[in-house]
Amino acid sequence: MKRIAIDMDEVIADAHIRFAEWYKRDYDVEFPHEQLHSSSFMDLVPEEHRSVIKGYAFHDDFFKDLALIPGSQEVIRDLYEKYEIFITTAAMEFPNSLLPKIQWLKHYFPYISWTNIVFCGDKSIINADYLIDDNVRHFKRFIGQGVLFTASHNKNVDWDLRVNNWQEVRALLL
Amino acid sequence: MKRIAIDMDEVIADAHIRFAEWYKRDYDVEFPHEQLHSSSFMDLVPEEHRSVIKGYAFHDDFFKDLALIPGSQEVIRDLYEKYEIFITTAAMEFPNSLLPKIQWLKHYFPYISWTNIVFCGDKSIINADYLIDDNVRHFKRFIGQGVLFTASHNKNVDWDLRVNNWQEVRALLL
Repeated sequence: MKRIAIDMDEVIADAHIRFAEWYKRDYDVEFPHEQLHSSSFMDLVPEEHRSVIKGYAFHDDFFKDLALIPGSQEVIRDLYEKYEIFITTAAMEFPNSLLPKIQWLKHYFPYISWTNIVFCGDKSIINADYLIDDNVRHFKRFIGQGVLFTASHNKNVDWDLRVNNWQEVRALLL
Repeated sequence: MKRIAIDMDEVIADAHIRFAEWYKRDYDVEFPHEQLHSSSFMDLVPEEHRSVIKGYAFHDDFFKDLALIPGSQEVIRDLYEKYEIFITTAAMEFPNSLLPKIQWLKHYFPYISWTNIVFCGDKSIINADYLIDDNVRHFKRFIGQGVLFTASHNKNVDWDLRVNNWQEVRALLL
């Protein structure tokens, strides 16, 4: 059985929208949909706000109840029948995110066992056939095939295998 | 550069002794050194105490300030010059252990970056040349060479490559 490693933020959980929500709360600024999804959130805000925005991810509540990326639940349920599924997230940078991420996975993907959840940093440590991720830096030393999942921040990044949404993951792997 | 993955409990951190300390606290029973190190702690205690003992590991304080396994600091410091070092612990079973484990690593192995710490369950997800671990179950589907680190509970377990202490790791890998 082949194995797929799947990232969390911007692949199954929408952290980008949480940045936008908290920024609106703190600065009363809202970006139009098209602009919001045209680049990384950090590139949208003035430089003097960036350290505050970066700090959001270190806050205990930031990773709680993140919205699902559309289609992820349905397609991963189907992939699960044909592949070994591991969730592999570079959560070690944000220790406060570890428990909320476990809770989130239990809620939205209850059939994925704790044995198949991986919190790491450098994803070259992952042994899998595919890695679905929004950051190409994780593909550089990855042993398998990196599959770039389109996110606001990576639209102009070059990679040989890209999927724009979960329907395209289904078409590629099922 | 070859890569070594290193487990935490019973390999660099002494959880076995913590079980003994808490058992003495709760039941006022102490085992002689030789008996304590002859088997898993669970096998030493009467059956009616086992569910309490198992519960210890789910307590917030259990993984705090665990003693170092002798020699681990010195030998890993030297291995670090010649290998990529990752700490790979099956911590997902005990979510309460995640933050204490990060703190513990920061304190005793401050030069190991968050990028090289992995909390997982099934260690077949680890891509490394060697895995130093006290549980042979992790070697079954491991991509590299499993190195069994002797612990009280595995003295009678068969495996082709065993080290009894960190000096033997040094002799094997340096």
